[in-house]
Amino acid sequence: MTTMRLQKLREEVLEANLELVRRGLVLYTFGNASGISRENGRIAIKPSGVPYENLKPEHIVLTDLEGRVVEGDLRPSSDLPTHVELYRHFPGIGGISHTHSEFATAWAQAALPIPCLGTTHADYFHGPVPVTPALTETEIADDYERNTGLAICRVVERLGPEEVPAVLVAGHAPFCWGPSSAEAAHHAVILEFVARMAYHTLLIKADAGPLAAELQTLPP
Amino acid sequence: MTTMRLQKLREEVLEANLELVRRGLVLYTFGNASGISRENGRIAIKPSGVPYENLKPEHIVLTDLEGRVVEGDLRPSSDLPTHVELYRHFPGIGGISHTHSEFATAWAQAALPIPCLGTTHADYFHGPVPVTPALTETEIADDYERNTGLAICRVVERLGPEEVPAVLVAGHAPFCWGPSSAEAAHHAVILEFVARMAYHTLLIKADAGPLAAELQTLPP
Amino acid sequence: MTTMRLQKLREEVLEANLELVRRGLVLYTFGNASGISRENGRIAIKPSGVPYENLKPEHIVLTDLEGRVVEGDLRPSSDLPTHVELYRHFPGIGGISHTHSEFATAWAQAALPIPCLGTTHADYFHGPVPVTPALTETEIADDYERNTGLAICRVVERLGPEEVPAVLVAGHAPFCWGPSSAEAAHHAVILEFVARMAYHTLLIKADAGPLAAELQTLPP
Amino acid sequence: MTTMRLQKLREEVLEANLELVRRGLVLYTFGNASGISRENGRIAIKPSGVPYENLKPEHIVLTDLEGRVVEGDLRPSSDLPTHVELYRHFPGIGGISHTHSEFATAWAQAALPIPCLGTTHADYFHGPVPVTPALTETEIADDYERNTGLAICRVVERLGPEEVPAVLVAGHAPFCWGPSSAEAAHHAVILEFVARMAYHTLLIKADAGPLAAELQTLPP
Repeated sequence: MTTMRLQKLREEVLEANLELVRRGLVLYTFGNASGISRENGRIAIKPSGVPYENLKPEHIVLTDLEGRVVEGDLRPSSDLPTHVELYRHFPGIGGISHTHSEFATAWAQAALPIPCLGTTHADYFHGPVPVTPALTETEIADDYERNTGLAICRVVERLGPEEVPAVLVAGHAPFCWGPSSAEAAHHAVILEFVARMAYHTLLIKADAGPLAAELQTLPP
Repeated sequence: MTTMRLQKLREEVLEANLELVRRGLVLYTFGNASGISRENGRIAIKPSGVPYENLKPEHIVLTDLEGRVVEGDLRPSSDLPTHVELYRHFPGIGGISHTHSEFATAWAQAALPIPCLGTTHADYFHGPVPVTPALTETEIADDYERNTGLAICRVVERLGPEEVPAVLVAGHAPFCWGPSSAEAAHHAVILEFVARMAYHTLLIKADAGPLAAELQTLPP
Repeated sequence: MTTMRLQKLREEVLEANLELVRRGLVLYTFGNASGISRENGRIAIKPSGVPYENLKPEHIVLTDLEGRVVEGDLRPSSDLPTHVELYRHFPGIGGISHTHSEFATAWAQAALPIPCLGTTHADYFHGPVPVTPALTETEIADDYERNTGLAICRVVERLGPEEVPAVLVAGHAPFCWGPSSAEAAHHAVILEFVARMAYHTLLIKADAGPLAAELQTLPP
Repeated sequence: MTTMRLQKLREEVLEANLELVRRGLVLYTFGNASGISRENGRIAIKPSGVPYENLKPEHIVLTDLEGRVVEGDLRPSSDLPTHVELYRHFPGIGGISHTHSEFATAWAQAALPIPCLGTTHADYFHGPVPVTPALTETEIADDYERNTGLAICRVVERLGPEEVPAVLVAGHAPFCWGPSSAEAAHHAVILEFVARMAYHTLLIKADAGPLAAELQTLPP
């Protein structure tokens, strides 16, 4: 039973990773998606450095909620500690995706939130997509990936993980999440799309105002 | 006879929806195209949330001119009330398309008309592509989709639906139309293309002037 | 002999038109390429409005050097009078291409020459790609296509058709040429590429200087 | 033994050239990759002007370390003298790639280094990607390709070829390198990606600061 459930989780996580590729969000082995089985206390995550075209369910690494590998011969993605912090802080999160997708990453590099300029954005993110503060020298030197996770968690605690299912890590790239790894990947795709459109909008009109508050909170 | 005519309408509407996909104007299930049989008093529109790759003629929903479903097991696109208003106000309109295509949506988010900067634009739109005013709080809260349709209609009444077969909805995205759903989809494709080129033109030269009035009104 | 030579010309012109499609320079039926047989006094040009995917050698229209149709059941491209003027003024031109390719058209809409900012550009165009002045009201009303050709010719007379095998028509789009229709299409592809890169360069650095004169005149 | 080793080198160099095509970095026959066998004193480089789709291992030209053709019926890429200078100055370089990829070339045309704005960039280039000074009139007239190589070498001598495996040649385009031709091509792909993202970042925020020094020097 557990075996079957974890096998299914691995397949879902594989599929979420492949969705990132199909939608043009990853270059080479960049990016990763994970999922969690809270019943089994297991996180399933993409291994590090395996080309997506060779990825099979058995390559997906299983860890416990501390990020210790439990099953799998491969090294988990180096971003695992960031995923772990998010899963530990927010019980509602069932899957996480991380990409260096072109426009969302540009906003992260600019260290600016993506403003909510239209209904496409509002239907998914209900307001600006926030950005973490820059990490301190100590946070970088100490444990960059874990401290990245903690920085994201501090931002999300203010907003709620359902309200804005994505955060930009300043100088790095976005992390997204959702009830499942499929929805985490879906949010990464939408995020890239609204990041492109916000970019174009502000190049058309530098002082484009945010969408009316009423539209930001419309039910989808 | 009626059955055959409505079956043909469904097939045409399906094909118009697929054209939006083929031309790269839609992400996931975004966007929709519809057509009308005025003889039969029927609107045919894409259902809500069905992936385009699975869409078949029998999924296309038929409604009356009030937007009440007459045939079809699926929910019509949530933008139906906007389509309905356009069909009711302008008897010459035979088809409508709505997308969140990247550059046309960016102009809509900037709440600026797309200026007519070249003959590519002028051959189809004969002047700037207008943008609606922002909806009021009451219009948003009351019936967003229907009030969006009314806002478009007020803009089109000034210009005539043949003169400019597209309007940008401020903070949302474009709507296009034509004598048939095929031509409505065709206008959506051209609109995205001229939206891209106007964007590039203004980034090259912020004060690029409009095309000479004589060229804006040249016969195609 | 004449028949074979003209048949070959039609095939070459078809192939040049298809190259514009393969390289992403055309939307729908936009654009056209032509070739000339000076021995036979014949111009071969794409017909108007035929989808590229259906285009066959027998659809290519043959005209005399006044632009009168000599063979072919279809209407020649409406830009034919522009092609005719170029062929008549410059005996060295063997083929012409015209597209509304995205970035070259944006420069034409901005009514600005494309500055020569790098060796990619210099290897083909040996200096800025010039732009025509805007046509007068009379020139537009009188015979827009022919007057467009004359405006291009006046620009090319200053520079020589081998020196800069492309001109932007202000508010419209580029025309390119070469010893054959294949080379005219090739120049349209390179022009679009250097138009993109000049655009990006100037957005990176608004006052990017032109390439050193020595490099603009280097042999390819 | 030598024959087998050189045959393998040719195959690797062919593969590196094809990777540039697959990743969208080349138009027509633009660009080239090479590799070196230091044991055999041989450089293997793409021939000039052969379409990539026809390229076979036997077309790859073998030269000595002075750039004199030793094996192969085709002319080596005209950029060979630039490659030769890099191989001679830096014994650790095993492969070199050169493209006119769109965004890296735009930075080269702007004659500006690509700033290090995010971890994607820092993981590969550990700081800004430098740009050569403009060549003098004499350097251009004398031996452009060789002097380009010397200009790159002077920049690399300050930084070390492992620290920043890429340099932009002002007014021209990037050169990249690595321990093998495969890694040189890989760096060209990453360079184009970070060039795009730096461009977008600075258009979002003109004064976007560089990434924290600690992150620029993080182990990959």
